[in-house]
Amino acid sequence: MAYKDFDAVIEAAKHKKRGVRVAVIEAGEEHTLDATMQAWRDGIIQPVLLGNREKILTLLKEPALAETVIHTESPEESARVAVRMVREGKIDFLMKGLAETSTVIRAILDRENGIRTGRTISQVTLIAVKTYHKLLCVTDPAIVALPSLEKKKDIVQNAVDVLNKLGYSRPKVAALCAIEKENPDMIETLDASALKKIVDAGEITGCEFEGPISADIAFDAAAAKIKGYQGSVCGDPDLLLMPTLAAGNIFCKAMRQFAGSINVGVMVGAKVPMVLVSRSTNTKSKYT
Amino acid sequence: MAYKDFDAVIEAAKHKKRGVRVAVIEAGEEHTLDATMQAWRDGIIQPVLLGNREKILTLLKEPALAETVIHTESPEESARVAVRMVREGKIDFLMKGLAETSTVIRAILDRENGIRTGRTISQVTLIAVKTYHKLLCVTDPAIVALPSLEKKKDIVQNAVDVLNKLGYSRPKVAALCAIEKENPDMIETLDASALKKIVDAGEITGCEFEGPISADIAFDAAAAKIKGYQGSVCGDPDLLLMPTLAAGNIFCKAMRQFAGSINVGVMVGAKVPMVLVSRSTNTKSKYT
Repeated sequence: MAYKDFDAVIEAAKHKKRGVRVAVIEAGEEHTLDATMQAWRDGIIQPVLLGNREKILTLLKEPALAETVIHTESPEESARVAVRMVREGKIDFLMKGLAETSTVIRAILDRENGIRTGRTISQVTLIAVKTYHKLLCVTDPAIVALPSLEKKKDIVQNAVDVLNKLGYSRPKVAALCAIEKENPDMIETLDASALKKIVDAGEITGCEFEGPISADIAFDAAAAKIKGYQGSVCGDPDLLLMPTLAAGNIFCKAMRQFAGSINVGVMVGAKVPMVLVSRSTNTKSKYT
Repeated sequence: MAYKDFDAVIEAAKHKKRGVRVAVIEAGEEHTLDATMQAWRDGIIQPVLLGNREKILTLLKEPALAETVIHTESPEESARVAVRMVREGKIDFLMKGLAETSTVIRAILDRENGIRTGRTISQVTLIAVKTYHKLLCVTDPAIVALPSLEKKKDIVQNAVDVLNKLGYSRPKVAALCAIEKENPDMIETLDASALKKIVDAGEITGCEFEGPISADIAFDAAAAKIKGYQGSVCGDPDLLLMPTLAAGNIFCKAMRQFAGSINVGVMVGAKVPMVLVSRSTNTKSKYT
């Protein structure tokens, strides 16, 4: 299975039995609260709102949610409390409101009180664009600058785990390079080959994997056919593994700017995922 | 000045006094010949058609061009003859027909008989896309895998020279990274800073330069304003310097696949530029 767009994800979430328990870190911001209320009304989430109680109550249009507010004195405290609640098994998902990303990550990574798993923390961006037939996920465009093979292994598994949880049984992964052959001048081609072997050996689970593969062959089944490249991933990838953070970052921003996509970032690899949306993003994106 | 799209480039070329002298390497292919004839009729080029004479004459719909055909026995010979004509000052521009790119590059780089300049050979892709207000150039998405600072200097100058020749007096260059600050984990940010100093010192000439700069700030003046970043390049770049070949390659292919762009590749850094279009590209692209 695969989701056509974010509306399809929301529709599927509405049909689940129990709302996901989400801690909103620094919830005192209108778009964040509106998105949270909408998701709560739709029965998708059970929110916990962390931040300045007075500010949150002023902005809150849904009185029933007032009891979910936990007052904190600072973004640092909001992050710490949210992370503690994850450790206590009370929270399934984190969402960043007005807090700085670095503040939240510090709390997550804290050696004493954090929620590390031993795995590399990485980012997945989910992209909805009219010119592709389903959601397109990209990793890692935001956290790990120049991942080693070992880190790429974690990065792929982190993203595949998210897709598996979303209902994809075997997402199709394309390890993007400029070419299809191993080339020692292009470390990403060697990594892609090695990762394919790792997947075949069952050390990365829950996905199909293709690479090294160039973007035209990955995106376009007709181009793949012309170049004599076969594989179920061609023209149909769910997840793009990027060679570097810079490549992924430029790709995601180009999709938004030139192809009109909606992008949603999720931080993965800790005990629970965290939605990372820019502080300037609107309600629709935050809701998604 | 800047060109809105490829039609604007063609229109400008029509008004120049003398047609550019173009050698077509392995011209015995219909789309290549049709594009060449069209450009000749418009007075833009004076072609020399290299390849199997019989095959070319069969496909040639313009008898007046028959006298420009030079018979050769192989793609290797076509490339060698074209390169020799460049050395003799008879050719301004190379165009690859049905020959393999590697065959042509070998002839260009030949130490005895080639047309090296001492500069790194690199590629520029010119992109026309409806969602940007002018042509967008990208370098290097095809030749130099992981350019050093020294090579990036050549790569930028190569591309700027092309733009200068096209009539841009000071093209705006954005050295794309994921962030705006120097970060030792991201070599491209250090290179971008160094290149900015090199431009300021007048060692790269004929352009404005900004970097390190993230793609959203480079593409979108409003995003730049929100993030407090100033510069004439923001929202208006002519040329994107990519951190790696892979990043540029993925970007260009994504533009074509998801934003519907038309891409034209030009190899630069030798004595004359060479148009590199995929053998499956249509007449319109080859003409452009």
